[in-house]
Amino acid sequence: MASAYDNMDIQQLEYEISTLEDEVARLKAQNLSLDMARGKPSPEQVDLSRPMLDGLTSVSDLTDGDVDVANYGAPDGTPSARKLGGELLGVDPAQVTVSGSSSLSLMYDVVCHAWTHGVMGETPWSKQEKVRFLCPSPGYDRHFAITEHLGIDNVAIEMGDDGPDMDELCRLVEGDATVKGIWCVPKYANPTGVTYSDEVVRRLAALKPAAPDFRIFWDNAYAIHDLEQPGDVLLNIFDAIAEAGSDNLVYAFASTSKVTFPGSGMAFVAASAADMADLRATFAIQRVCPDKLTQLMHTRYLADLTAMRGHMARHAQVVRPRFELVERKLKAGLGDIGCARWTHPKGGYFVSFDGPEGSAKAIVSLAAELGVKMTGAGATWPYGKDPRDTNIRIAPTYPSLEELGAALDVFVVCVKLVSARLALAARS
Amino acid sequence: MASAYDNMDIQQLEYEISTLEDEVARLKAQNLSLDMARGKPSPEQVDLSRPMLDGLTSVSDLTDGDVDVANYGAPDGTPSARKLGGELLGVDPAQVTVSGSSSLSLMYDVVCHAWTHGVMGETPWSKQEKVRFLCPSPGYDRHFAITEHLGIDNVAIEMGDDGPDMDELCRLVEGDATVKGIWCVPKYANPTGVTYSDEVVRRLAALKPAAPDFRIFWDNAYAIHDLEQPGDVLLNIFDAIAEAGSDNLVYAFASTSKVTFPGSGMAFVAASAADMADLRATFAIQRVCPDKLTQLMHTRYLADLTAMRGHMARHAQVVRPRFELVERKLKAGLGDIGCARWTHPKGGYFVSFDGPEGSAKAIVSLAAELGVKMTGAGATWPYGKDPRDTNIRIAPTYPSLEELGAALDVFVVCVKLVSARLALAARS
Repeated sequence: MASAYDNMDIQQLEYEISTLEDEVARLKAQNLSLDMARGKPSPEQVDLSRPMLDGLTSVSDLTDGDVDVANYGAPDGTPSARKLGGELLGVDPAQVTVSGSSSLSLMYDVVCHAWTHGVMGETPWSKQEKVRFLCPSPGYDRHFAITEHLGIDNVAIEMGDDGPDMDELCRLVEGDATVKGIWCVPKYANPTGVTYSDEVVRRLAALKPAAPDFRIFWDNAYAIHDLEQPGDVLLNIFDAIAEAGSDNLVYAFASTSKVTFPGSGMAFVAASAADMADLRATFAIQRVCPDKLTQLMHTRYLADLTAMRGHMARHAQVVRPRFELVERKLKAGLGDIGCARWTHPKGGYFVSFDGPEGSAKAIVSLAAELGVKMTGAGATWPYGKDPRDTNIRIAPTYPSLEELGAALDVFVVCVKLVSARLALAARS
Repeated sequence: MASAYDNMDIQQLEYEISTLEDEVARLKAQNLSLDMARGKPSPEQVDLSRPMLDGLTSVSDLTDGDVDVANYGAPDGTPSARKLGGELLGVDPAQVTVSGSSSLSLMYDVVCHAWTHGVMGETPWSKQEKVRFLCPSPGYDRHFAITEHLGIDNVAIEMGDDGPDMDELCRLVEGDATVKGIWCVPKYANPTGVTYSDEVVRRLAALKPAAPDFRIFWDNAYAIHDLEQPGDVLLNIFDAIAEAGSDNLVYAFASTSKVTFPGSGMAFVAASAADMADLRATFAIQRVCPDKLTQLMHTRYLADLTAMRGHMARHAQVVRPRFELVERKLKAGLGDIGCARWTHPKGGYFVSFDGPEGSAKAIVSLAAELGVKMTGAGATWPYGKDPRDTNIRIAPTYPSLEELGAALDVFVVCVKLVSARLALAARS
């Protein structure tokens, strides 16, 4: 994109840079300490769930259906927790297993099961010569870290406005038997905020993978995390798979970490009946039973999807002003310059920001110098390598509105100075 | 052992068998449904922890030291939970990681870490030609199941009155580099109730393993589960290792599953500083943070080891009469016959029973016919194969005293009939 800086003559540009450098010096003198790095709910959001803690007391009935919640048993989770997971992921509760903190651990365990034992009796991935995973990018660094940790090749594919580049994806999945999986955050994707379109979901569901042990890792982390109504609507992938006449194609995940108390809640995994039986053969060795008291506390407070959506509407009231502030500050500070673009998600936890090519590392580094912590540039790409060095993840939920505003002011100055310097460098 | 049955003439023996068969027919007609299979606390025990549920409410302070328990963070556990784990396992809290339900999952994760990544940079076990684990037997079936599930060779070694056969153990560990680990329940072992003697712990601590990636898996599941005072005292293995001038030799585990609510509590793993750093490199990818609210609830209720021991004394009041009943019934029913022996543990969850050679499967099967469920015969040996078919695990904690008494009466008749039949068969 050609920015206002590109259109300035060198003298104007040098003056602009000098003005911005004065501004940077002024900000540096303030010794700020602000944080826009963490995809964490704010304390105000977390407090919304405090009443849940009154739900279990010494005199509570500690049973759920025919399950004694207070003792061993029910390795797949309480009946109410599985029912809620089924509603959340759009699948029969029989195909849901519920554990405690966190869905990321479930993902690790599922990848590890494929690594050590293979998917449904296929050769374990550890014994296959090469295993590749597709990583729609920018994406979630902790997904990419799981496969990287096991020595799986992470392959970046481009993330568009309605989901991953499906032509490239189909080509790879259907043409290359070393491609065993893809990491997807299908609704309000981390960090772009994109929700996969119906067509994308249908094409995914209709995939004919070259590898019989290929699976879609469907991390529906933001299933009910709408900022406004109506929010984006994601097609139910299990329905789409049934419609396509496919089967055994997806592992779906969700959790309550950004619904109630992060880490102290429930994590869900769902899959076809056959895939779930395959997973449970390993889970039966690996686990005894989940923290059913936590499950009981949750399902008494949030009994069904309607109750959960009501609760999330209160989260939205806290979160929406932060996203609006990001939009307002970026637009006011950068809108006329045209050196950057950013996303305008209707939910989730992030705004994805792209500066000029070669700017992201410099912007994040300058912001850090000025006391504003951001997610490391490149973190949203496999191996931390953003090929164009443009992408920065903005996480606006945790800071107060005041802190967020101050952090964004710093960020805007950093973007402007780095962009102007790049424009000047391009002239010489 | 030569029993009374061996000393009877054939006519006497046939008469005895016929009398016992009448007794069996009578019991069968009662359509009993009793269970001595499960190492589960009784409801009466579980209820002891109910007051803990009043500890966290909507107005509670949800911080522990400088940790905000209600949000992400503190991946190794809350400060108070780590301190408690350090006291329980006799080690610096810095060397403790606390997760939620359960310690068995932690053991799986640690074995899996060695399998996928190797211990401290050694070749991953999955890439080594052969990996063997020592299994003191009779022992805990779920330990053996973890290594069996990964295709590791489980090697039974004999369990004596003061721990595993140390001569055989040293020979294997120090002479065979394919031996990578040993499963130990060092106090009130499952199922024998044996506590390792100081000498055994010292010899373990002084091991010079042939394999640099050999580790002792020290499942201190019953560290504070004494039935009487003074209970057995287990030497601190970390101290013994320091004294022996060794290092990086043990992964130690414990949990609150038989202290508070099974599955809904805390699990601990401890190791040398270097081993813990190695484990945390994988944990950092696998986990986000543990359920810190559960940790906070626990440590507010049971702040230190003294509080925990006080709580366990109340468990003992519930459990001790059950163990006394086992001893009384077995002694009264079988003491004069001399066809069996059993253990008299001062703590833990099990009594280990040995009948005549070739009897265990038949006894358990006959008891099942009469409506009394026992742990499967052979379960206490690797691959479920008890070479002499003698060992049966009795789990007396879960049934009421009345149910337990009825179940033991059935068990005694089964032991007598099977033993008498074996004695008769030996004559022909």
